[in-house]
Amino acid sequence: MRVFYAAETERHAPEFFLLRGRPVANEERAERAERLLAGVAAAGLTPEAPPSAGRAPLAAVHSPRYLDFLETAWAAWQALPGASPEVVANVQPRRGEASYPAGVVGRAGWHMGDLACPVGEFTFAAAVRAADCAVAAADAVAGGAGAAYALARPPGHHTSREVAGGHCFLNNAAIAAERLAKGGARPAVLDIDVHHGNGTQAIFYDRPDVMMVSVHTDPNHFYPWFVGHAHETGIGAGEGTNRNLPLKLGADDAAWHEAIAVGLDTVKSFGADVLVLSLGLDVHESDPLGGMTITTDGIRRAGALIAAAGLPVAIIQEGGYLGPALTDNIAGFLGGFLGAQR
Amino acid sequence: MRVFYAAETERHAPEFFLLRGRPVANEERAERAERLLAGVAAAGLTPEAPPSAGRAPLAAVHSPRYLDFLETAWAAWQALPGASPEVVANVQPRRGEASYPAGVVGRAGWHMGDLACPVGEFTFAAAVRAADCAVAAADAVAGGAGAAYALARPPGHHTSREVAGGHCFLNNAAIAAERLAKGGARPAVLDIDVHHGNGTQAIFYDRPDVMMVSVHTDPNHFYPWFVGHAHETGIGAGEGTNRNLPLKLGADDAAWHEAIAVGLDTVKSFGADVLVLSLGLDVHESDPLGGMTITTDGIRRAGALIAAAGLPVAIIQEGGYLGPALTDNIAGFLGGFLGAQR
Repeated sequence: MRVFYAAETERHAPEFFLLRGRPVANEERAERAERLLAGVAAAGLTPEAPPSAGRAPLAAVHSPRYLDFLETAWAAWQALPGASPEVVANVQPRRGEASYPAGVVGRAGWHMGDLACPVGEFTFAAAVRAADCAVAAADAVAGGAGAAYALARPPGHHTSREVAGGHCFLNNAAIAAERLAKGGARPAVLDIDVHHGNGTQAIFYDRPDVMMVSVHTDPNHFYPWFVGHAHETGIGAGEGTNRNLPLKLGADDAAWHEAIAVGLDTVKSFGADVLVLSLGLDVHESDPLGGMTITTDGIRRAGALIAAAGLPVAIIQEGGYLGPALTDNIAGFLGGFLGAQR
Repeated sequence: MRVFYAAETERHAPEFFLLRGRPVANEERAERAERLLAGVAAAGLTPEAPPSAGRAPLAAVHSPRYLDFLETAWAAWQALPGASPEVVANVQPRRGEASYPAGVVGRAGWHMGDLACPVGEFTFAAAVRAADCAVAAADAVAGGAGAAYALARPPGHHTSREVAGGHCFLNNAAIAAERLAKGGARPAVLDIDVHHGNGTQAIFYDRPDVMMVSVHTDPNHFYPWFVGHAHETGIGAGEGTNRNLPLKLGADDAAWHEAIAVGLDTVKSFGADVLVLSLGLDVHESDPLGGMTITTDGIRRAGALIAAAGLPVAIIQEGGYLGPALTDNIAGFLGGFLGAQR
């Protein structure tokens, strides 16, 4: 299995995070990539740097003004008197009448849905290189590979067409799926991060040609709070091509595997010929968010379950807490996948 | 002129505020009321406590779940492990598909549009008493008084039907206007705070029976960032009964008075028989926000200009920085108003 990783992504080092009203350290750090790389090595795989895919694959799922914002906001923010080292939104547009604002404070609110996506000097460059990994994985699969893994950091699945959120800036999985669709494939996204893939859902919500299935913790009690319910099934031409499988807080291996199996059946019924997997390792029992209680062995078996479905898979890294289990969990997933694939 | 003030509002003492990415002290403090009371005394007026108006006037403009949130969120928040002393939102619903969440973190995001409206233990009680002041002022005017002043704190004009924002929790001006409309009058709201009255606009946007006019700094470069443009004129049955008069950053007395005169003409053309004035003193040249450069004498003359329009007026206090000029500015406004009224 080819593995794509770009060292430039390490320059994205977010600091700001607000948890229950208190500023705390941001955990989406470069050390996450180091732990994941160790797991890749333990699985017997060797990462390679992806080629630059240019702006076109990003512009296929994100708006021009959003890409411009990500690219220019940090410099504009630094020009404000007394500004913090990172762009952090403090106000969001209300539902209803709203016009796109001219200044960076307003634009930050427009383009950042929460306080977990601070934009620093190197954020855009890192996000572009993470997206390059996703594009390379999609291209590998389109080229005949059974699977490829994009070790993408920052992650992507909470970002919609033009709103960042939850550590995510460019939606790597959506970029991969869109690239596969444009190439003539019929892709499905299966999102097994502990959080609902709200950005990916939003991007494909009206699209009949890309299926989106997400297995996650019930948003009534978990981020992203407002979406991820079973009743959200798509809209317009996309009606019926969105499926959410929310699980009760604290779900175990059995419940998770069962939902993944339902998700894979849904993908097959849709007639997908390729899978984009949004892989979050924050389902693990050691994750401080406490959304699920999945074991490392449960993660390994999920890899086997997904490989056994027999579809080519572009595996895109999403969340996963910076803890010692991260290495074991990615090694377990990849090992389980490769074992069932061979 | 009767003046309404409730000492219970002093128990609302917000702390959290995020300015350009940095936590700083919240300036919407009880000392504001003390400075305003000094100005009331300087104008020769004596404040009185308003009667309790009960929940009905609040429920006439706010949703039941929003009132429930304001009343119960602080206790629910305190039950979260490691929670901050005040409810502060860290995530907002995206535009599009969204369901009302079950937990307080999600509900905080749903009901709080920015980081400038922390909910503390006594916030709801204070906001209710501030609204009582607005109701009392409306009732005084409905009962034949030429004018009444509600020294309302926290202010209200940034709060829509169910989203708080910008130091505001209950929309005192909208509550007063709705009460007057229900009583058979034809009210107009004239908002001369330095910020657009986005909450009031939202509440009456589809309403043909209440005119809303706002004079404020161009939202392209100023809070509330997303609304307050001249092209926002109402919707549906309310088309034509919303008028925004945005001024360039740094507007002076002449530009401000001219816009107020246009606003008063608009109110007359609408056929209003009573005025609700959202009075912000943050237009002053000493205000650190720097939106306008209005002098204390300019504020006095605005009072005279509005009194000369000859309509009964319920004056509702909105913003105004906690600075030494606050006393002079309210005294100037009330003095100018009373001088022209007599």
